[in-house]
Amino acid sequence: MTEPLKLGLAGPGTVGGGLLKLIAARGEALAERSSRPLEVVAVSARDKRKTRDVDLSSYRFFEDPVELARDPSIDVFVELIGGEGGAAKDSVEAALRAGKHVVTANKALLAHHGPALAALAEEHGVALNFEAAVAGGIPVVKTMRESLQGNAIRRVYGILNGTCNYILTLMEKEGRPFAEVLKEAQEQGYAEADPTFDIGGFDTAHKLALLTSLAFGTKVSFDSIYVEGIESITPADIEAADDLGYRIKLLGVALRTDSGIEQRVHPTMVPKHMAIADVGGVSNCVAIGGDFVGEIMLIGRGAGAGPTASSVASDLIDIARGHVLPPFVIPAKDLEPYKPAQMRAHEGGYYIRLSVYDRTGAFAAIAGRMAEQGISLESIVQRRRPAELPGFRKQEAGAPTGVVMITHQTSESAIRKALAAIEQDGNVDEKPQMIRIEKL
Amino acid sequence: MTEPLKLGLAGPGTVGGGLLKLIAARGEALAERSSRPLEVVAVSARDKRKTRDVDLSSYRFFEDPVELARDPSIDVFVELIGGEGGAAKDSVEAALRAGKHVVTANKALLAHHGPALAALAEEHGVALNFEAAVAGGIPVVKTMRESLQGNAIRRVYGILNGTCNYILTLMEKEGRPFAEVLKEAQEQGYAEADPTFDIGGFDTAHKLALLTSLAFGTKVSFDSIYVEGIESITPADIEAADDLGYRIKLLGVALRTDSGIEQRVHPTMVPKHMAIADVGGVSNCVAIGGDFVGEIMLIGRGAGAGPTASSVASDLIDIARGHVLPPFVIPAKDLEPYKPAQMRAHEGGYYIRLSVYDRTGAFAAIAGRMAEQGISLESIVQRRRPAELPGFRKQEAGAPTGVVMITHQTSESAIRKALAAIEQDGNVDEKPQMIRIEKL
Repeated sequence: MTEPLKLGLAGPGTVGGGLLKLIAARGEALAERSSRPLEVVAVSARDKRKTRDVDLSSYRFFEDPVELARDPSIDVFVELIGGEGGAAKDSVEAALRAGKHVVTANKALLAHHGPALAALAEEHGVALNFEAAVAGGIPVVKTMRESLQGNAIRRVYGILNGTCNYILTLMEKEGRPFAEVLKEAQEQGYAEADPTFDIGGFDTAHKLALLTSLAFGTKVSFDSIYVEGIESITPADIEAADDLGYRIKLLGVALRTDSGIEQRVHPTMVPKHMAIADVGGVSNCVAIGGDFVGEIMLIGRGAGAGPTASSVASDLIDIARGHVLPPFVIPAKDLEPYKPAQMRAHEGGYYIRLSVYDRTGAFAAIAGRMAEQGISLESIVQRRRPAELPGFRKQEAGAPTGVVMITHQTSESAIRKALAAIEQDGNVDEKPQMIRIEKL
Repeated sequence: MTEPLKLGLAGPGTVGGGLLKLIAARGEALAERSSRPLEVVAVSARDKRKTRDVDLSSYRFFEDPVELARDPSIDVFVELIGGEGGAAKDSVEAALRAGKHVVTANKALLAHHGPALAALAEEHGVALNFEAAVAGGIPVVKTMRESLQGNAIRRVYGILNGTCNYILTLMEKEGRPFAEVLKEAQEQGYAEADPTFDIGGFDTAHKLALLTSLAFGTKVSFDSIYVEGIESITPADIEAADDLGYRIKLLGVALRTDSGIEQRVHPTMVPKHMAIADVGGVSNCVAIGGDFVGEIMLIGRGAGAGPTASSVASDLIDIARGHVLPPFVIPAKDLEPYKPAQMRAHEGGYYIRLSVYDRTGAFAAIAGRMAEQGISLESIVQRRRPAELPGFRKQEAGAPTGVVMITHQTSESAIRKALAAIEQDGNVDEKPQMIRIEKL
């Protein structure tokens, strides 16, 4: 048995507590399986006296994570502070500069500074592992860095945010409106007090930025991701999707196209008979398509103390086993510049929901706007619904009527132009709803 | 750039051909990503002159794979011959003894001789990698050996045979009987001329034996697996399952129980709303439950040249990167003896289909036999069906009636005793059908 791998843990919150429990529970087995025990020797936190789930009294305590990161007693700096800059960035940089391996669950930090930090890790010959940063307990980073290296990857997509998936699942099961379900999710601890980061799609985009880089060997490019959240989804959309054989999921999608790489995050209608449609609640999934492997999909819990600790442990075990790779597989200096593609045509077309004034010529005008852009319709359904279904208005004489259209395959720009014209014409009494359909 | 990793390929069939194509297509990228190019230098095959998809003329040729395995020109012996003994076993042993790394897709060999071969690999300090032996392109071996090491595994299960899944999917979609669909699968190359190995569940059992060992750190124990194939499944069962909200899948299941480890392969009714129910056609899936990660599921193609070559390449890249682990994670000598559990009670109970003579007292006798064993019924449905639905008899006066019963949770032994008694009583005109239900 060699010397233990000595860990300094910054940010002993939920995930950090999970990691301490995991090491306590599995310490012996891990020592046998990696031939090197894992040992937490020091922690840092903002407030030493804060009441916590786990007892920190046996570890050396640092107020300053940067000081911990540089401390000679540690081999690995485990960063669970969070945030794209500040203490997280300072301490990770300090650790790498001091020649310490770093394991982090911080997607925001890597989505903004990934290649620079990777270059620093490579310069100092240490690991910068981040399995826990994408999709919690799902081993997607290892799968992409190691298992699928024989493949040219053509796309990667998935459900990457448990909060959004939980809200959409509950809206679907109970037919309740977004705001009400969000409030309940906040009360139950499934959504933050300020939920923008999750429901606005930004957390998904951070994770997608990392997957894109791993998939295509390009520099991480968070800013070029098209991001749309789930705030506008109504029970009417979910019910219409259900009738049409779809479920609505917030997906992150990255594709290699002829013109460049497309990265987008938006609510998507996926066919109910596909496995991804059954990924409900706080679960996540990631699908990766390669030229030899075909498509593989990984499903599991995307957050929480246990799953995230499992991924952090996996990163630590790799270091204990001496298995260190460049963070983005190919050296950071060789990552290609990210070349964005235009948002392209989507297989399966678009779902459009309009609230149309019930007056002569309104439908004709709408149909005309679609035709102008060369958009053909697969189906058009007028939906008269009782008032109790939120998202549709109560039907009274002259009141707007819900209309759902499904288009044949068309381009994003054509749809946007048509909808802008329809809104401009004044035949609808609210912003048109548009959801992309992917047959996947 | 270091020296290439020199490969000797034994058995250049479908998968071997896929590997040669992969190395040709991805050679440069792989060299960059593993800092060591992969180079096939020699092959062996039974017949040099056989017409093949790939051109072997540029490689040194060996008639005898054992000779290739020992040849000083190679670093890695890639065994794609197949079979639990014979040339495959002889050549793998020879390679390990000569200090060559081995990569194999041979589940039968490892299910029968895994620990002995692992011990040999460890003794000589070389790899014995077998990602391609379980579930084709799905990276389940790496996930278990590396990503989930922080977890105590409680169970692993999955759809591990594409032929069976293809047949069951087609039976379900088209309502056609087993024999007819099997014949078509054979014509299309999805089933072997002698299909016993696949449809009888033995191929699934080979793969399960390896997963069990990886999950629980026990010696591979193929012989203790309870195996039941899909031959007895009728369209009547599939339709009844559908009505009840289930699909029928051939699952391999390994569980840690208080009394030992349970390993079983059998047709299983799984709820339609679960992702596993949507894994159709030749796809495979594996689910692994651990105490920290929860449950993760991996889905992908379980066979074929491309997916299998992707997994072989992944094993080779690990070797090129110098990442060598004991084949079953913990040293072969430390693998615990396999301690079998009794087939235990199944959550969700059992599906029973009987063909009951339409006479007074028959139902009462059957119900009495179930009650004797303490089995309570969740539902009982008499199914009168037109003759065109295979598996149910045409309804004529006095002809047997199809009866489907769903039991509450009960033990395997109670069910077996009750069904034996029912058959003995002579109120049924064919062997009772019994399918386990798993809510998973």
